[in-house]
Amino acid sequence: MPLDIDTLRLDFPILAQSVNDYPLVYLDNAATTQKPQAVLDALNHYYQQQNANVHRAAHALSGQATQAFEAARAKVAAFINAPDTRQVIWTRGTTEAINLVAYSFGMHSLKAGDEILLSTLEHHANIVPWQQVAATTGAIIKVIPLTADAELDMSAAATLFSPRTKLLAISHISNALGVINPIKQLIAMAKAVGAVTLVDGAQAVGHFPIDVQTLDCDFYVFSGHKMFGPTGIGVLYGKRELLEAMPPWQTGGEMIKHVSFTHTSFGELPFKFEAGTPNIAGAIGLGAAIDYLSGLNRNAITAHEHNLMQQLLAGLSAMPDVRIIGRPKAGAVSFVIDDVHPQDLATLLDMQGVAVRTGHHCAMPLMQALGLEQGTTRASVAFYNTSDDIAALLAGIDKAREFF
Amino acid sequence: MPLDIDTLRLDFPILAQSVNDYPLVYLDNAATTQKPQAVLDALNHYYQQQNANVHRAAHALSGQATQAFEAARAKVAAFINAPDTRQVIWTRGTTEAINLVAYSFGMHSLKAGDEILLSTLEHHANIVPWQQVAATTGAIIKVIPLTADAELDMSAAATLFSPRTKLLAISHISNALGVINPIKQLIAMAKAVGAVTLVDGAQAVGHFPIDVQTLDCDFYVFSGHKMFGPTGIGVLYGKRELLEAMPPWQTGGEMIKHVSFTHTSFGELPFKFEAGTPNIAGAIGLGAAIDYLSGLNRNAITAHEHNLMQQLLAGLSAMPDVRIIGRPKAGAVSFVIDDVHPQDLATLLDMQGVAVRTGHHCAMPLMQALGLEQGTTRASVAFYNTSDDIAALLAGIDKAREFF
Repeated sequence: MPLDIDTLRLDFPILAQSVNDYPLVYLDNAATTQKPQAVLDALNHYYQQQNANVHRAAHALSGQATQAFEAARAKVAAFINAPDTRQVIWTRGTTEAINLVAYSFGMHSLKAGDEILLSTLEHHANIVPWQQVAATTGAIIKVIPLTADAELDMSAAATLFSPRTKLLAISHISNALGVINPIKQLIAMAKAVGAVTLVDGAQAVGHFPIDVQTLDCDFYVFSGHKMFGPTGIGVLYGKRELLEAMPPWQTGGEMIKHVSFTHTSFGELPFKFEAGTPNIAGAIGLGAAIDYLSGLNRNAITAHEHNLMQQLLAGLSAMPDVRIIGRPKAGAVSFVIDDVHPQDLATLLDMQGVAVRTGHHCAMPLMQALGLEQGTTRASVAFYNTSDDIAALLAGIDKAREFF
Repeated sequence: MPLDIDTLRLDFPILAQSVNDYPLVYLDNAATTQKPQAVLDALNHYYQQQNANVHRAAHALSGQATQAFEAARAKVAAFINAPDTRQVIWTRGTTEAINLVAYSFGMHSLKAGDEILLSTLEHHANIVPWQQVAATTGAIIKVIPLTADAELDMSAAATLFSPRTKLLAISHISNALGVINPIKQLIAMAKAVGAVTLVDGAQAVGHFPIDVQTLDCDFYVFSGHKMFGPTGIGVLYGKRELLEAMPPWQTGGEMIKHVSFTHTSFGELPFKFEAGTPNIAGAIGLGAAIDYLSGLNRNAITAHEHNLMQQLLAGLSAMPDVRIIGRPKAGAVSFVIDDVHPQDLATLLDMQGVAVRTGHHCAMPLMQALGLEQGTTRASVAFYNTSDDIAALLAGIDKAREFF
């Protein structure tokens, strides 16, 4: 059954608004997605009916809050096919999840001369924490280069793996280019040399189903706000034996077994990594986003988004002064126009209600490698976008090409 | 003008419910507070009208979201009288704020033999991060003991300060006992020996106005969810010269100036400490909580809460088998009853709709020092509590004393 996008859009109140007297065309989904009313209803329900602190239940509300909070964890586990809910750690988002692994695993397990393998198209969040680990431990960062088509150079990657490789940290989908990386193949290459693997799934979770057991990665991280959930909540999935061997990072209440001034011992998974009162409402809201997504036909979503991407790519390809960067496959399309600064284009598009993003997209090394000093203009889709949205974007780009 | 509590309670939808066929009596405010509808309205407004990622504005929504997010920071600065909005760093809560200072200041500035001064009545969040710093740096933890009345022994404190004291980390109000610590005096003693000061204000911000400039502390930390704001958002206030000298802790997008694989440089305050997409909605919700609180007569709130505390203390004092722990002044009252396990009492109270907390209240060293193996029962008030709430609690305790 095809998706009825017009009906689905009614679930997203924000999409009905006008911007600068034009209907809002929201094509900045790689930055953050909009929230269905079901997520807001879950937040309101929690705060209006159940709000209490969790895990120290001495009363009814606290019991209900704990149950709702842990039910959300179970929803995440099912959503990514994690074998056990204890392997789902709440974080603020993708960035904090990577920092957790960098501080707890990286700082403690890596030694001078060990190699961390990244790629040229990583987001800063999957670069800078590893630079900190390298600076502290003496580990060395190696970088998978790009082909002329701005995809990962897999032949070069093959030569970069060695027994010195201790960690592969790689994005599932490039936030800047919409390229889907061959992560199954890279994970297999990493495992062949005994390296631990971390996948930055921030751009993937909202677009297609994730199965961490099939991927067989050691860590998978993502943000709620990029998959129709609230801000301030994200997830670190990890293999249990690794998580159990890792020391705590942030410490405080909730994560301890026993505290005295002479000796403190820490709790079990997942609480060992969750110091302090968590973002209870955020977790519950993310659970509601998962319920919402799970109620949709996800194959139909993938097909619909594919059609939107094809429409956009075809439209851009027909403009001789427009250059599409790389070969976008999911989520985002980045492009540049001869003699038009991306920021000027975005301003003109915004005047027509079209929201896109410009600049380096938190991927400066990528922009540098591509020789794109001014960055790109990036349009990024979600399932609630329509063919009309893409047409409005293309019309806006056309107008800008005439104007400049 | 006295507060009209019955009218104010209408702002808190959760308070109107029944629990176990009794009206809810929520006296677990030290664990988390309830949220006024104005805070939920702010969250809904943000998600339904403005939701976008911040600080990379290429379109109208992003501009609005950034403005609302930074306006919330300005509200926090005004709320605690911080000299500059750049001194307000968003965190997940008090615990993350203390961890930030422990990792960024503690790990880098403290050396073997340096002393960290804590107190016996600290929350685990203000103990365990410093134990981690001590274990890594060789710094030594010293602990201000208690008097027989379970207050800080200020004569002993005076002997503990020395030129070796590099950090004083102290709670403004004890979460477990409701004792207000003499922090102005302690901060002055710390400054006299050149020590940096951190105040854990988690239990204070919801009860009376805070002025960080009058206190003259170096760091002040608190959580949104304990002052009628959302979960998942908190604040680190710091003196500017200290924050500027401290290295970043979490790294990633938002907090960088320039990234390349050979050299990365970091952004200015406050962004240097805010890696990744922040809890945008949470910050805006906390701003709404501040607006709500600022619209009330805060002196009247303090007086009303004082009256509730006096009513509770008088009622408990009239029960010969009840022992009040310490001399509670604000927020919480902890007590034990001969031959009644706190958990049994809480269960019986819950059956009558009364929500309290029992156990060690994340303050095991305190409970150990007081010889309270089973912890205490803690009732904690907010301004929306009524004299009837206290009467219901006292009646429930009376029933329990007969029952057991």
